[in-house]
Amino acid sequence: MNGFACKRSISVDDFFFDGLSRPGHTNNTSRASVKLATVLNITGLNTLGVSMGQIDFAPGSINPPHTHPRATEIVFVLKGELDVAFITTDNKLYSKSIKTGEVFVFPRGLIHFQRNSGNVPAAAIAAFNSQLPGTQKVANALFASSPSVADNVLGKTFQLRSKEVKRIKSRLAYNKL
Amino acid sequence: MNGFACKRSISVDDFFFDGLSRPGHTNNTSRASVKLATVLNITGLNTLGVSMGQIDFAPGSINPPHTHPRATEIVFVLKGELDVAFITTDNKLYSKSIKTGEVFVFPRGLIHFQRNSGNVPAAAIAAFNSQLPGTQKVANALFASSPSVADNVLGKTFQLRSKEVKRIKSRLAYNKL
Amino acid sequence: MNGFACKRSISVDDFFFDGLSRPGHTNNTSRASVKLATVLNITGLNTLGVSMGQIDFAPGSINPPHTHPRATEIVFVLKGELDVAFITTDNKLYSKSIKTGEVFVFPRGLIHFQRNSGNVPAAAIAAFNSQLPGTQKVANALFASSPSVADNVLGKTFQLRSKEVKRIKSRLAYNKL
Amino acid sequence: MNGFACKRSISVDDFFFDGLSRPGHTNNTSRASVKLATVLNITGLNTLGVSMGQIDFAPGSINPPHTHPRATEIVFVLKGELDVAFITTDNKLYSKSIKTGEVFVFPRGLIHFQRNSGNVPAAAIAAFNSQLPGTQKVANALFASSPSVADNVLGKTFQLRSKEVKRIKSRLAYNKL
Amino acid sequence: MNGFACKRSISVDDFFFDGLSRPGHTNNTSRASVKLATVLNITGLNTLGVSMGQIDFAPGSINPPHTHPRATEIVFVLKGELDVAFITTDNKLYSKSIKTGEVFVFPRGLIHFQRNSGNVPAAAIAAFNSQLPGTQKVANALFASSPSVADNVLGKTFQLRSKEVKRIKSRLAYNKL
Amino acid sequence: MNGFACKRSISVDDFFFDGLSRPGHTNNTSRASVKLATVLNITGLNTLGVSMGQIDFAPGSINPPHTHPRATEIVFVLKGELDVAFITTDNKLYSKSIKTGEVFVFPRGLIHFQRNSGNVPAAAIAAFNSQLPGTQKVANALFASSPSVADNVLGKTFQLRSKEVKRIKSRLAYNKL
Repeated sequence: MNGFACKRSISVDDFFFDGLSRPGHTNNTSRASVKLATVLNITGLNTLGVSMGQIDFAPGSINPPHTHPRATEIVFVLKGELDVAFITTDNKLYSKSIKTGEVFVFPRGLIHFQRNSGNVPAAAIAAFNSQLPGTQKVANALFASSPSVADNVLGKTFQLRSKEVKRIKSRLAYNKL
Repeated sequence: MNGFACKRSISVDDFFFDGLSRPGHTNNTSRASVKLATVLNITGLNTLGVSMGQIDFAPGSINPPHTHPRATEIVFVLKGELDVAFITTDNKLYSKSIKTGEVFVFPRGLIHFQRNSGNVPAAAIAAFNSQLPGTQKVANALFASSPSVADNVLGKTFQLRSKEVKRIKSRLAYNKL
Repeated sequence: MNGFACKRSISVDDFFFDGLSRPGHTNNTSRASVKLATVLNITGLNTLGVSMGQIDFAPGSINPPHTHPRATEIVFVLKGELDVAFITTDNKLYSKSIKTGEVFVFPRGLIHFQRNSGNVPAAAIAAFNSQLPGTQKVANALFASSPSVADNVLGKTFQLRSKEVKRIKSRLAYNKL
Repeated sequence: MNGFACKRSISVDDFFFDGLSRPGHTNNTSRASVKLATVLNITGLNTLGVSMGQIDFAPGSINPPHTHPRATEIVFVLKGELDVAFITTDNKLYSKSIKTGEVFVFPRGLIHFQRNSGNVPAAAIAAFNSQLPGTQKVANALFASSPSVADNVLGKTFQLRSKEVKRIKSRLAYNKL
Repeated sequence: MNGFACKRSISVDDFFFDGLSRPGHTNNTSRASVKLATVLNITGLNTLGVSMGQIDFAPGSINPPHTHPRATEIVFVLKGELDVAFITTDNKLYSKSIKTGEVFVFPRGLIHFQRNSGNVPAAAIAAFNSQLPGTQKVANALFASSPSVADNVLGKTFQLRSKEVKRIKSRLAYNKL
Repeated sequence: MNGFACKRSISVDDFFFDGLSRPGHTNNTSRASVKLATVLNITGLNTLGVSMGQIDFAPGSINPPHTHPRATEIVFVLKGELDVAFITTDNKLYSKSIKTGEVFVFPRGLIHFQRNSGNVPAAAIAAFNSQLPGTQKVANALFASSPSVADNVLGKTFQLRSKEVKRIKSRLAYNKL
């Protein structure tokens, strides 16, 4: 039981979503926009184990380091060019610059990110092998959670002084990615 | 054990594929082209349970009725407009016309198809929750297999005379979809 | 969550079914009868991932080409002799004549069928690794769905003229397999 | 990786088994015979998650209490009549007398047994949702293992004196069920 | 659907349990005490597929032969020393004496037991890859179920006379392990 | 296929590990020590889906924020007292102080950490529902990977100046947690 009920009567719209087609807002701090098509939007996905997303990147923007706790991700570059990377459990960075029409895989649960180093907008389609993959942005989870992670935990973790921790917290609280 | 070995040394290219970016040939009978990015092309996908494909549609073309024996499919329309449909196990047809940027789900194992009824090319990105979903085109499986399905099986199944069965077989053998 | 509730109080009859034991009616068009013992009949099967069926074949009858979208099938011949076959995703036909007491496997999701070529009735027990495997008869799904699949989709798929498509549709609508 | 390799070239016989069709020997102590059709006999079952078995019962015989560590079992009575039973984790016994053509379920991993209380032979077909369900006969596992379970463990478990334990051990060693 | 509902509002205590920390009562017949931390105690475990338990052993006590129908078990010795063993499906006994801080695995569904042969109390932490592994004590399931397993089934299974079966039943009913 | 072969001949030591029992070294920067008992140490765990670990905490130490990409974790406090916490995908922090003998769950893939705020050593046993859960320490993955994550990615992510990023990198490189 996962909290999503089986509907008694279904219609074709239970298998449809038009929310990825609307332009993404990329005027936030990271200037990358993520829209998802999961079981939260598509009720017919319940028990079917797949979902999608669209990511729009302003020039110079990043989709900052994050994980999907319950899924592998595979991306297809819709337009532009992206620097993509993931980091393994033994702290090896695997990175590559990929172009329109190319495909890249981010293995299940690993920290990964994308960056548009170009001068033109870029976009990608992402797919996940979960109906609700979840997304955890690492910096926000650690420095902008509610309630807050204790300063000395973050200080020891990142080798920062308490004052530095507080500064990062206040900046991230101000500019929610 | 699934026949794909774990590699001892991996590189970033084990998670990359550029084969979807090449234009699809749509000058065959169905004039739709399917290219796949599975564990056969991306060795790093082994055990990760996801894959992708690109489908290109000439105006008026169809991606004929088929199943994926091991996966649910979710599609995103890259360009143009598509009529999409699946048929349930109680023979209900669920169909919809979807536009660029829209998303549709074909539940695991069910017969489905797409058609470009417009005057301009269309294309879609498909994702699957299997590293090797498999594709079985229904008409070809039944009328163009090797060896051939017996005429009287097909005759009873489709309520066709033997002569009609032979005619379909010869046409499909000639024009492999 | 799959729509089947866990019962608060269970009894031995939640694990029992006598519906396969009744003679199957084989006087329909295909003259083969399929009866199933799934979670729809046996409430105790919920979450247990297995089910059964019995297929009765009049002499000369077929269980027409179909798929089970969510399961592999294994059959045991109860009486008589059967021609069994499945078709792979690269359109290879694997077929064999099997006798009373013999066993055959139809891999997950692939199109398969059985035929009684003999002069005496035949019967088989089928088992599935799903509590609700689903069955999709290919010809009926395509030519007798509700609403109907467009004639030109079927025409292109099977290389048929519109008139031929309509004829198959009317015959299959008349003689539901 | 489970120890069964994917074959490079497959044939139809990789999906076939005729070993259940041979008469079972029921002249042992328990006078019930179990034959299995698993991935050990049917190489094409690898990764497909299902298997079958046939059980033959002489009049008055039992298939003694056992578990399948990796599968649920569903049985179909081929001939005769059987008393079937399983015991739940809170020591409730669910039992029923079932006749030819009837079906019963033994939930995953639970101790269960069958008995032919009639005067004529009986037989059943069993199916499992595992390609290799495993079978553990409780009495033999405890009193006839190699090396032997310590007498005082069995004594405390069954509230038996050491002499009684030794007697059961010697009887079971002599008459392997 | 497994009978455990997803909660709408969660709190940190849905992921917490203090019931293992209370001393186990080991003054019963087997003088070993098992306490579990499963989805029955920790509602946040729902769908998460893991659980724990603590086992306390008086000197000379045993945790009698049992199975977990839905899980593999891994144990860590908290204090003292334990004789641990499991029996495979071909009746091989694998046993070892393990000390404080050592780890041992009991594969999914197999009969296993632990014994404190020492003169001081022992304890172990067990973990399971199921949110509700279930426990079936073999002797109690067979000789102390409700209703009772027929004497002649147990007699044939363990090669016991009816009188011996009745004696075991009455002892186990009196001294519930 | 996961790279771990099934052994032809097994022994009891394939199910045993004594490496958790050795004292953990807690004189590193974080002064917490993690030792694991996975399929890398216990070959018999292959396909069995569970593993364990022991974490030792010097007074004032932390096991810094990390994820397990492939598993839920459940911990049992062996001695001392721990502050434990995880952060959800919507940046809620769930934290609690837990004592010897108490249990806490870290849901699959989420960032979590533990801290010993007391004046005495603490220790915990962790269990995972994967034979190889993997561990990704967030700070090290981002600031001490090889090759390095680009300064401007980290700068935008944590709202840090390039100089600050370089300082964290050099500290973490020097004091590997």
